[in-house]
Amino acid sequence: MPAADARHRTRIVVIGAGFAGLQLVKDLKGAGCDIILVDRRNHHLFQPLLYQVATTVLATSDVAWPIRRIFRRRRDVTTILGDVVDIDRDVNHVVLACGNRLDYDILAVATGARHAYFGKDEWAAAAPGLKTLEDATTIRRKLLLAFERAELCPDLVERQALLTFAVVGGGPTGVEMAGIIADLARRILPREFRRIDTRQSRILLIEAGPRLLPAFGEWASDYASRALTRRGVEVRVDSRVTHLAPTEVHLGDPDQSGERLRLHTVIWAAGVAASDAHRWLRVDADRAGRVRVGPDLTLPGDPAIFVLGDTAAVESEGKPVPGVAPAAKQQGHHAAQVIRARLRGRAAPGPFRYRHDGNLAVIGRNAAVIERGNLHLTGRSAWWVWGVAHIFFLISPRSRLAVTLSWLWSFVSGQNSARLITQGDAGTDDPPADRPLKQPAAGTDWGQPPQRAPRPVQR
Amino acid sequence: MPAADARHRTRIVVIGAGFAGLQLVKDLKGAGCDIILVDRRNHHLFQPLLYQVATTVLATSDVAWPIRRIFRRRRDVTTILGDVVDIDRDVNHVVLACGNRLDYDILAVATGARHAYFGKDEWAAAAPGLKTLEDATTIRRKLLLAFERAELCPDLVERQALLTFAVVGGGPTGVEMAGIIADLARRILPREFRRIDTRQSRILLIEAGPRLLPAFGEWASDYASRALTRRGVEVRVDSRVTHLAPTEVHLGDPDQSGERLRLHTVIWAAGVAASDAHRWLRVDADRAGRVRVGPDLTLPGDPAIFVLGDTAAVESEGKPVPGVAPAAKQQGHHAAQVIRARLRGRAAPGPFRYRHDGNLAVIGRNAAVIERGNLHLTGRSAWWVWGVAHIFFLISPRSRLAVTLSWLWSFVSGQNSARLITQGDAGTDDPPADRPLKQPAAGTDWGQPPQRAPRPVQR
Repeated sequence: MPAADARHRTRIVVIGAGFAGLQLVKDLKGAGCDIILVDRRNHHLFQPLLYQVATTVLATSDVAWPIRRIFRRRRDVTTILGDVVDIDRDVNHVVLACGNRLDYDILAVATGARHAYFGKDEWAAAAPGLKTLEDATTIRRKLLLAFERAELCPDLVERQALLTFAVVGGGPTGVEMAGIIADLARRILPREFRRIDTRQSRILLIEAGPRLLPAFGEWASDYASRALTRRGVEVRVDSRVTHLAPTEVHLGDPDQSGERLRLHTVIWAAGVAASDAHRWLRVDADRAGRVRVGPDLTLPGDPAIFVLGDTAAVESEGKPVPGVAPAAKQQGHHAAQVIRARLRGRAAPGPFRYRHDGNLAVIGRNAAVIERGNLHLTGRSAWWVWGVAHIFFLISPRSRLAVTLSWLWSFVSGQNSARLITQGDAGTDDPPADRPLKQPAAGTDWGQPPQRAPRPVQR
Repeated sequence: MPAADARHRTRIVVIGAGFAGLQLVKDLKGAGCDIILVDRRNHHLFQPLLYQVATTVLATSDVAWPIRRIFRRRRDVTTILGDVVDIDRDVNHVVLACGNRLDYDILAVATGARHAYFGKDEWAAAAPGLKTLEDATTIRRKLLLAFERAELCPDLVERQALLTFAVVGGGPTGVEMAGIIADLARRILPREFRRIDTRQSRILLIEAGPRLLPAFGEWASDYASRALTRRGVEVRVDSRVTHLAPTEVHLGDPDQSGERLRLHTVIWAAGVAASDAHRWLRVDADRAGRVRVGPDLTLPGDPAIFVLGDTAAVESEGKPVPGVAPAAKQQGHHAAQVIRARLRGRAAPGPFRYRHDGNLAVIGRNAAVIERGNLHLTGRSAWWVWGVAHIFFLISPRSRLAVTLSWLWSFVSGQNSARLITQGDAGTDDPPADRPLKQPAAGTDWGQPPQRAPRPVQR
């Protein structure tokens, strides 16, 4: 890194506008650098609420904000929509897919993680994960189409398969997804269908480990398990997916004591792997694809390069830092402090320390768990605290208003507002995928079904 | 149609949940029929505000509502997500793509219209029209990506082509789109880009006829033309598109006095053609693909079949009824009255009469035209009336709240809230289309551009 002189403003390139990258850029306000922020998307995504887009509660624009807009008043920040393909550490530049290159004095790599299938990449097509807005609308389409297809399906076995939903992974995202799908099937949709009883849906939450919410205390796992079971979710712990295809899931060894599930909807909330940053940097990665960094969050031996957030393997007081939003934000903040100290020629701040603010997970309407030190909160009060906390975390006042409105509306009316099936292929006039799974007997009038589900008797 | 007896409830199949179909089903409440409502989409779309989704003002869920939800309390209504492929008039049934068939006593076909390219179907790929939610997000992506690409583009000529936008068709949709793109380029985006001045964008509105808003009085055309010009839109009347490719548009004969435009974004707001209903019905269609119906809105010679809305060629007092939302609603209402009269064995109501409630079009912030009889309203007052009227027309109180919030927010903050670029291919992790139009010179550092646009000096 060249010494700061009067004419050269330090150029900082930040790759990734997730929680870490965004915080870094914010905390460099007034530091007198030229900052270039590159992301493959034009928006910052509020991941903690993305599952609510997938489950019809929130609109896409409630949880995503144009990055340019966030920094429109920061003359020192230039935003680029671009796809990084390489980093040349010898000559200090970043290469974009469009052919442009970006020289840097300091580089921060905060490119996050994507879902991982433990080496079974062929599962991805059958079991979408939840990382992007498109993932969320894909899952939303899959969920809603399953009910639509079941309503049209003349075959009872096939119909039950359509009404079977499996969520793989018992962390907060899996718990939240399973809870909200149960809400959808048992509370929101029953009145709207005439041939099927959506309350007969099976919703399975599959966790390979011995308990849900492994990052929480055991009391929280017990509560989550009970609360989900009360909502009609079948919780399977110690249960490993051994086979996954578009219409079938095997748990354990089906020839032994395992189980085969016929279904059409599997949602993947199990594993994540870090982005490809270690390849660009040509450094070793750990098993999860993360790049090991020192206590100042830079690459060992290359103080010009910071690696932050889910892309980095960081330790704090001898323990690995979890891949959660608050940790990413704290790393962005710490990196900004290190850079500021350098620019001013001051002593570096101490090593990065992760401050754990507690664990939150929501299970469904009126049910959540909060664990913060000795504070254990469950049920309705936890649910309200969770809601208020997340509204507070949202980035713009506009989103706070919109999310508050959506939630209050759902709460009061018992209805979700974003129940739209949109196409995978934008811009085509193709019909939605209502193609049959089995052809009905020729000449059957659908209007006179052989088996009619009992009419739901709800308010 | 069989006579109503005590045991057989009349089965009414309605194809299409647009304005006409929805109104018909609503007005048949309590008529004692079994109604099956079929649509290719799971949502009713409020078309008059769709252009605001395309131009980043509103979220998709603000203008679309799940059809099932609308009729959840109507036990006599069954909603199907299905794709009609044929109608067999000999045995009175509708055939769905999934193989199911729906028997009917009475059938209402209200399948709307799609955009038409006057026989030049190859133009569709280069110039998307605006009929579905996916069309709207496609146009939104194209608009926003053009600015993003221009920011990265090292070539001045190419950059100007990226900042050139053409809207084809000078009806209300074209006028509204051009006005709002101008707003975006001149008022909303300038602060956010560092290399380009978005205010240097060219926005062209191209109309083949002699004036904008041909359905309005001439005073309105003059006002719209002046108001758009003041906003920096180049209005071209008497101007016909003769060639349309992804990067080029020809107006008139370029070898004579015509013009070639280099650009990357063309939006089609020119022509519509009715859906394929006439093929299913095996009847002749008029030039626009519409089915001619009698004064009771049924097929001549087949009183069991109603054709409504944009699919029908209807006359009212000797004049053709325009293809607008109020006309479709009135037709749905009239058809319901005809059916009710038949069911009760009463005399049919008189012939359908279109009641023209006036013309509305919005041009941009604080500018709209309203024409209702002798009432001519323009400017800020028309804009507020337009807004309040449209909020009133929205179908659910939830949308009214959400749209009001979005509009008030835009008005107060000067910002639009739905500026998201989402992918065409849902569910993939592919980067956005930031591929270059021309490769920059190898080894150019994008951070030090040869030509820097002047910094916008706005609040």
